[in-house]
Amino acid sequence: MKLVRVREVYLYLVSHHPSSSVLFLRCTSQVNSFVLSLSAAPTNTYYQGIAFSFTPTPASVPPQDPNLSLTLSTPPDLPVNFHPLNPLEFLLRAAQIYPEKLALVHPDVQFPVYYTYSIWAQRVQNFAYGLLQAGIRPGDRIVVLAPNWYLIDWADALQGAIGARAIITTINTRLTKHEIEYILAHSGAKLIFVDHEYSHLVSDAKARIVVCNDTGRAGDPYEDFLTAGRAYSQEKGWPGLEMDSDENTPFCLNYTSGTTGRPKGVLTTLRGTYLAAIANAIETQMNKDSTYLWILPMFHAAGWTFPWSLTLTFAKQIIVRTVDYSLIWKHFLHSHVTHYCGAPTVQIGIANHPDAKQLPRPINAITAGAAPTAHLLAQLEGRGFQPVHVYGLTYTYGPFTRNYSRPSWFALPLSERAKLSARQGHALVTASPVRVVYPTKSPGDKLVDVPRDGKTVGEIVTRGNIVMQGYFQDPDATARAFEGGHFHSGDLAVWHPDGSVQIQDRSKDIIISGGENASSLAIEQELAGHPDVLEVCVVAREHPKWGERPMAFVTVHLESAKRWADKHVEFARELKAYARERLPSFAVPEWVAIVKELPKTSTGKIQKTALRKRVAKL
Amino acid sequence: MKLVRVREVYLYLVSHHPSSSVLFLRCTSQVNSFVLSLSAAPTNTYYQGIAFSFTPTPASVPPQDPNLSLTLSTPPDLPVNFHPLNPLEFLLRAAQIYPEKLALVHPDVQFPVYYTYSIWAQRVQNFAYGLLQAGIRPGDRIVVLAPNWYLIDWADALQGAIGARAIITTINTRLTKHEIEYILAHSGAKLIFVDHEYSHLVSDAKARIVVCNDTGRAGDPYEDFLTAGRAYSQEKGWPGLEMDSDENTPFCLNYTSGTTGRPKGVLTTLRGTYLAAIANAIETQMNKDSTYLWILPMFHAAGWTFPWSLTLTFAKQIIVRTVDYSLIWKHFLHSHVTHYCGAPTVQIGIANHPDAKQLPRPINAITAGAAPTAHLLAQLEGRGFQPVHVYGLTYTYGPFTRNYSRPSWFALPLSERAKLSARQGHALVTASPVRVVYPTKSPGDKLVDVPRDGKTVGEIVTRGNIVMQGYFQDPDATARAFEGGHFHSGDLAVWHPDGSVQIQDRSKDIIISGGENASSLAIEQELAGHPDVLEVCVVAREHPKWGERPMAFVTVHLESAKRWADKHVEFARELKAYARERLPSFAVPEWVAIVKELPKTSTGKIQKTALRKRVAKL
Repeated sequence: MKLVRVREVYLYLVSHHPSSSVLFLRCTSQVNSFVLSLSAAPTNTYYQGIAFSFTPTPASVPPQDPNLSLTLSTPPDLPVNFHPLNPLEFLLRAAQIYPEKLALVHPDVQFPVYYTYSIWAQRVQNFAYGLLQAGIRPGDRIVVLAPNWYLIDWADALQGAIGARAIITTINTRLTKHEIEYILAHSGAKLIFVDHEYSHLVSDAKARIVVCNDTGRAGDPYEDFLTAGRAYSQEKGWPGLEMDSDENTPFCLNYTSGTTGRPKGVLTTLRGTYLAAIANAIETQMNKDSTYLWILPMFHAAGWTFPWSLTLTFAKQIIVRTVDYSLIWKHFLHSHVTHYCGAPTVQIGIANHPDAKQLPRPINAITAGAAPTAHLLAQLEGRGFQPVHVYGLTYTYGPFTRNYSRPSWFALPLSERAKLSARQGHALVTASPVRVVYPTKSPGDKLVDVPRDGKTVGEIVTRGNIVMQGYFQDPDATARAFEGGHFHSGDLAVWHPDGSVQIQDRSKDIIISGGENASSLAIEQELAGHPDVLEVCVVAREHPKWGERPMAFVTVHLESAKRWADKHVEFARELKAYARERLPSFAVPEWVAIVKELPKTSTGKIQKTALRKRVAKL
Repeated sequence: MKLVRVREVYLYLVSHHPSSSVLFLRCTSQVNSFVLSLSAAPTNTYYQGIAFSFTPTPASVPPQDPNLSLTLSTPPDLPVNFHPLNPLEFLLRAAQIYPEKLALVHPDVQFPVYYTYSIWAQRVQNFAYGLLQAGIRPGDRIVVLAPNWYLIDWADALQGAIGARAIITTINTRLTKHEIEYILAHSGAKLIFVDHEYSHLVSDAKARIVVCNDTGRAGDPYEDFLTAGRAYSQEKGWPGLEMDSDENTPFCLNYTSGTTGRPKGVLTTLRGTYLAAIANAIETQMNKDSTYLWILPMFHAAGWTFPWSLTLTFAKQIIVRTVDYSLIWKHFLHSHVTHYCGAPTVQIGIANHPDAKQLPRPINAITAGAAPTAHLLAQLEGRGFQPVHVYGLTYTYGPFTRNYSRPSWFALPLSERAKLSARQGHALVTASPVRVVYPTKSPGDKLVDVPRDGKTVGEIVTRGNIVMQGYFQDPDATARAFEGGHFHSGDLAVWHPDGSVQIQDRSKDIIISGGENASSLAIEQELAGHPDVLEVCVVAREHPKWGERPMAFVTVHLESAKRWADKHVEFARELKAYARERLPSFAVPEWVAIVKELPKTSTGKIQKTALRKRVAKL
């Protein structure tokens, strides 16, 4: 081994086949690049007194015969010029071209794991055979219930389910036991993979349960499942698994964590996933030198389809078990992170954390859920992030539009540029164009576009390859969502002359104040510009004279909290004065409340419903 | 206008709608980036005494109503989650998102043209309506016969034919009049677009002919055709054109410039083009800041499907009418070129031109047709090019495999790295895996893979989305090409343990020397390493004792030519000694001939057939 001076850096060293062990060194300072050459890979080495070692289970190591094909078998009788689009093939291709490249890194736990593409692909194969051994047949549902953040069972399952032609069902871990039981029953799940921390939530389930202790070590029930799958395969390998001949087959079932009503299952297909993954990769310019940090919850639209964008670009993924901003900043500063996705509330947490520093190199901060405010944009850009503002829903595989910035915007004042950057923009490269239409009166009505005047409010609709196949076993709800031959997003928006769309509000978020429609989103955007405001949420509150008036719930910055601690009335007065300068009078909040934190959904969205309930009691 | 000091740089200034005029400034030194702000766009401005101005024809300027949709109309009764893949939509999307961005630049002619995405899209629309007005119906064939290099009629036609659902037929301009007449008859072309320099080649054609003078000015018959199309549309715009409901519809008919037999028409589809264009864009990391220089002949597999990779990434294209290395170097040095494609013979021309200098920023040099030699690789990299070695055929939409370099290669000596870089590699992201199989004995035989040992020679076969639909009106030839459910490339190769393929020779290029199979390609690769050798071609020559022996035809570098001028015998002796150190004895050329130039096909490939004929007479 060549000795290098290293200080405060993660070194990921990957051996060559067949041991594929990984040596993980944590040191104490920062370097930008280095080369270490090893003659043989140590499985357990100490370096400057601090080291971790990792050896994958024997079942995770693929056979060494180069003639074993890394391809699924092709169904007979397909036309020679047709190959059904299948997102699992991206992983198999990565394992063929860059077998020794690190694919999955899960370092910040008691039992860290480091999987190369070759090892990971073998684990995914084992998973698929494990499903077959468990009696799973094409179209059967399996469930993964694991912490928000992309763990090894998630990583394997999202790929491996395709190999067994099963439907993978994602469940939000923050749902109640009652809700989870509903989903297990509704989906008809035959096999449940559950993280050890969440096993109590499925304790009454009828289906077989495989617990994952998140160790990657033998003795972990999940690892035993994979080992059994490997044995069951009898080394038939990938060609023992046949790809689906129909690319429109659904394979992912995402239950939406709706704020009202029972969770609904959204079916997405192989073709849609393949094309959405391509769009993400192109839009975020990922490549084999990219490192993606999993901050986004995995159960949220299957991680916005990024699991397959990452394999298609040969990128490296870093997994963290919880959203811990210190840990996130450690990776930003020392792990060559280039991309991550997160809701604005996560971006705010990142930008305002005490560990926040200037980044050593730019990071693509992909944000969706709400537009980043001018303040947040300035904070992120000031640190060296490159914000990418996308918009999407579970029904659209995550992102399906993007704010495409223009060079001319960068000559504008920040406040102006933030307004342009707040638009949800145009459809992604593989998505069909987005439209904004008037509400229809009867189910059979033709959809009519609103004028592209930046003023008239309508509903965002779209169709095409990046739209769900439908709701699982709910043809009535599917028909309603697809009225007029388009998917109805439920998001109200204006259409600008440049063809970009901009969300105003979900219909229930409009505040009817003195007969005027006040957009709670527009009010929030303005209030967020106040220097003391950290996060803000505006909801309608009944008013004897005006019908409704806006009420603002606000959290303030740490350094401002002290100043306003005993002066809530003064702060409310100041914020209202600030609003009066920027908003029409009917949109100025009548009430302002400083709160410690805002209620949020499991995916990081602010729960307006909870605030509305609180307001109803006032 | 803000004044900036500029020296030796092209400034492309694009106005805002509606005039969309472009001011072109050529100055006298080099800067890296600059901002010029204009309050209004001049249509004719002089700056430092040298300026060009350009105003598009009125018919090229789109209407200013933002409510006119930039989308084809969707056929009725499609599933909501299905949108037929259609590569024309990339252009319409670019025109919507970046209307004012320069798309096509054709500067080095008497009448330079500069089209923004908005203007270009309108011209494409006019082209499509022009076809409809001319009576073209879905599936009808139209022909473009224009110089090798992407001209404005090519640019419009390859996109516009999709709008009218016509099949665009590409013809190599270097074919004889007799061959062209055969293609016109075989394709049943109903409408011919011909560049003014080539109109004599179609003088006897029965179909209607539209001549293009390559001016972009009114009075040019081609421009009049577009203007008539605009009038015919009655401003119905894009929604007046319906997309094909079947993405497997063929829309491009490429006649191969085969060295033997009659040209064959290769049909490619909307789906294949869409997916191949995505693969090119991802592999070459193109984005909206990319500038692509057209050196590759356009009639060669529709420009390797790059016309649609460029629109999907919002890139800028620079068009040159002829391969003029001085001009190419001018653009490399001054026009922010980031990408170009070319056969190795073109790359050699580039690397050895007297104007060659260190590049101001890296350029992706995408090369196919034969592997770059170690010498060429070193030359290109030395200047700052980043060679990307791909492999493909007209039957595979151009590239379908790529040499994926690994970081570890860069620690090897150049000669070793060049050997690894010479492999044709692995399938592209949207292509199906490539195989190497034994020759079959009877048509019904199952294909059997050769071992992945880097030694056993077989034929490269593949299948899937990046394979032609078939030969036009030739089911027998299609069936032969598709035997065993795979497309047969005719290229002989070995399969390496890492899954990459490496071409040895086309079957007729194997030299059977003393019962041994000598690969002419492998011999060429070695001889090209000799410092005096510029290009080399090896063919079989009859030998009384050994059956066949290799004969090498060589061109030498300019600076070496003088030295060896009267010493051909000595050079042959030296080159044979050089070969003897590197090759098995049966592969050492028995004869060496220095020639002034090697015979080449219209697509820049060395014509071995011509050399074989010459050898036959010896």
